[in-house]
Amino acid sequence: MRQDTRSTCPISTGLEIVGDRWTLLVIRDMMFAGKRHFREFLQSEEGISSNVLADRLAMLVERGLVTRAGDPAHAQKAIYSLTEPGIALLPVIASLSRWAQVHFPATRRPEARVFLDGDEAAIAALQQALRREHLASGGR
Amino acid sequence: MRQDTRSTCPISTGLEIVGDRWTLLVIRDMMFAGKRHFREFLQSEEGISSNVLADRLAMLVERGLVTRAGDPAHAQKAIYSLTEPGIALLPVIASLSRWAQVHFPATRRPEARVFLDGDEAAIAALQQALRREHLASGGR
Repeated sequence: MRQDTRSTCPISTGLEIVGDRWTLLVIRDMMFAGKRHFREFLQSEEGISSNVLADRLAMLVERGLVTRAGDPAHAQKAIYSLTEPGIALLPVIASLSRWAQVHFPATRRPEARVFLDGDEAAIAALQQALRREHLASGGR
Repeated sequence: MRQDTRSTCPISTGLEIVGDRWTLLVIRDMMFAGKRHFREFLQSEEGISSNVLADRLAMLVERGLVTRAGDPAHAQKAIYSLTEPGIALLPVIASLSRWAQVHFPATRRPEARVFLDGDEAAIAALQQALRREHLASGGR
């Protein structure tokens, strides 16, 4: 992947790439809500605006975390897929979900239970399912 | 801790609290560089501005991730400490560090090797050392 960051610290570099609330919410929607189209991301409860969404999707494609396919003449029909580095963010999101559920019990929910429990086997299975769904090779 | 967020999704809630590059860089500096004073945070290589730093430190205190102690008449002398929820962010930062080091090899560095390796025992020991250093009770 392209690296074009101000610091060589891994944490700082990671934050330059995904350290923005909307960026990780787009990844969340691709991972857990099966969203693949521009219009679907707009419908999330956090209310992302279409210009912020367009900016974050373009950045994710440029940084190699997401690919975009479809007819260039029909922007509405473009389909977005996670790449392997994008799918590899799952453990980061899982640990953030766990932290929030531990410290803000109001956020606990059945579908996020695997993260609260830190169920490594379930997280690995989820990652494998994302590879089958998003990677052209099916992750093989 | 106070929760005052737009969504009850744990990922969204987590991002509302720490999903900002500067916020996690302040936590990083407290965890790994032993920084406790306003002036020390200003010296990080990423070049945080003093107004952004003041804003993020106030937010971290308000949200209960950091405490501030010291003479109110000498703002320069205030000392910041991590709380247990702040220290509990270590696994989130560790998995972000690992992700960056795997996908951006230029960020690999000896002192972050424990995160690249996902060395759980070393991470737990680091967390325990932070408790001794930051919590009044010494984490006992």
